[in-house]
Amino acid sequence: MSIPTTDSNTTAPTQFLRVRNETYAYRRFGSGRGRPLVFLQHFVGTLDNWDPAVTDPIASEREVILFDNAGVGRSTGKVPTTVAGMASHGLDFLDGLGLDNCDVLGFSLGGMVAQQMAQDRPSIFRRMILVGTAPRGGQDIMHLEKPSLARHLGDPTLKGYEVLQKILFAPTSSSQAAGGAFIERLARRNEDLDTPSGADVAAAQIAAFREWEHAPGAGFGDLKGIHHPTLVVNGIHDEMIPVSNSYRMTENLPNAVLLVYPDAGHGSLFQFHESFTRQAAAFLASDSPFAPY
Amino acid sequence: MSIPTTDSNTTAPTQFLRVRNETYAYRRFGSGRGRPLVFLQHFVGTLDNWDPAVTDPIASEREVILFDNAGVGRSTGKVPTTVAGMASHGLDFLDGLGLDNCDVLGFSLGGMVAQQMAQDRPSIFRRMILVGTAPRGGQDIMHLEKPSLARHLGDPTLKGYEVLQKILFAPTSSSQAAGGAFIERLARRNEDLDTPSGADVAAAQIAAFREWEHAPGAGFGDLKGIHHPTLVVNGIHDEMIPVSNSYRMTENLPNAVLLVYPDAGHGSLFQFHESFTRQAAAFLASDSPFAPY
Repeated sequence: MSIPTTDSNTTAPTQFLRVRNETYAYRRFGSGRGRPLVFLQHFVGTLDNWDPAVTDPIASEREVILFDNAGVGRSTGKVPTTVAGMASHGLDFLDGLGLDNCDVLGFSLGGMVAQQMAQDRPSIFRRMILVGTAPRGGQDIMHLEKPSLARHLGDPTLKGYEVLQKILFAPTSSSQAAGGAFIERLARRNEDLDTPSGADVAAAQIAAFREWEHAPGAGFGDLKGIHHPTLVVNGIHDEMIPVSNSYRMTENLPNAVLLVYPDAGHGSLFQFHESFTRQAAAFLASDSPFAPY
Repeated sequence: MSIPTTDSNTTAPTQFLRVRNETYAYRRFGSGRGRPLVFLQHFVGTLDNWDPAVTDPIASEREVILFDNAGVGRSTGKVPTTVAGMASHGLDFLDGLGLDNCDVLGFSLGGMVAQQMAQDRPSIFRRMILVGTAPRGGQDIMHLEKPSLARHLGDPTLKGYEVLQKILFAPTSSSQAAGGAFIERLARRNEDLDTPSGADVAAAQIAAFREWEHAPGAGFGDLKGIHHPTLVVNGIHDEMIPVSNSYRMTENLPNAVLLVYPDAGHGSLFQFHESFTRQAAAFLASDSPFAPY
């Protein structure tokens, strides 16, 4: 059980778990009747990129476990160049914690890792939340060279988290305002910070995106074997992983509800954190074998 | 205020309202703090086609008003051959009731009528729920000649509501079982029944679908002017009005959340009535100018 005063990603201490040849950095806080929810992070994101406005309300009903995959933040090892490699580390980490069944929230790259883990070992997850992500064989996945993204990523005037405000949120005043509030919330954590990702992390993860994009075989057949109750979430104006990928996931996963937010980009869960955490709590509270909640 | 024993579409008496040259049939029941919710019905549907598993839980928090448009059920007049004509009757009816602002649930054809009413008089609605419907200029709207539909519509062995079980639900055992439960619920009403729609109603409404499908001008520009907080709902396997139409609505309406159900066809709201009424109640309970709830 956690100490109540640390039930926030603003203050929760980073912990380290040795499994096989790696040491994984993670944070674990919160309590309640719900099953633990493991959070799998986006491109170049670390433990410090999880919005406390999302993690903390969820932690009031269950443990949340934030995880740095191999080579990210303060986890040791090399960043795998495939989603399958990342999924293998994810399973090792949960094995190390002694968790043989939990819920998962996979965001962006983390959503791909969650899908792969669910295929590699279905019993590891009970319910899945997949936000701003894409199926294997999806389209237009994280092409940072696109003008809509490159102009922010190459803007030398953007400092620290400011680039996240630009690329995770839609180019409307309301979405950008939500993005400003988001990066203020991230900045509240000022001790025990993770190591920011460098160009090597980015390059390996981009390689994983390219491999994920080029699916062998036809269609989205892999998805038909993932029977977990799943909640697919996206922003309608996602430039990083377009919402059409969420459509394809929902059309091919046999047991997935789709929830799409207006006026939002890749970071819809942060922009509409009150709605998202309420929807996620209702979804996770269900014991039904069916996804609708 | 309604009498509690009639707070169900199984038992609520049909009422009649004279406005201008027409007399409209309707049912009004339920009570609570919420704004009244007007229900706009699907192709050839009457007051008797509203599932009490949907209407009744919603009626526990607000009045619900079920409405037969002109020429349908026991409403007088000719069925308009355009959605705009139906919207005009809808506005006349609400004027006759003295309601100048309410919430709306438009299902299928009713969702088109709701969109048109919102454009013609934006102040008439506060929040909108659009289920299994399409924007003006949408694709593959109610083509009953498609083999997937025609084989049921032309099947002489299907009696009464049985055809609804086939065409409103997906061809899976779970969805068909939900469809069987749905038509049992409809059949519980056995007095004060509406007049079933004949071929003349169907022909006029089909003409309205064809007119709606062929939008003048480009794209879905009309939708950008509908700023009402909107909840768009669909089943992922809708053969009557495919889910792509819900995608296009959500992409072009500035303030719409999309909720898509798995394993469901056109009648997703009836199949997942517990989830749908919970989601609808949460959406309608919100006073936010933004759709997310």
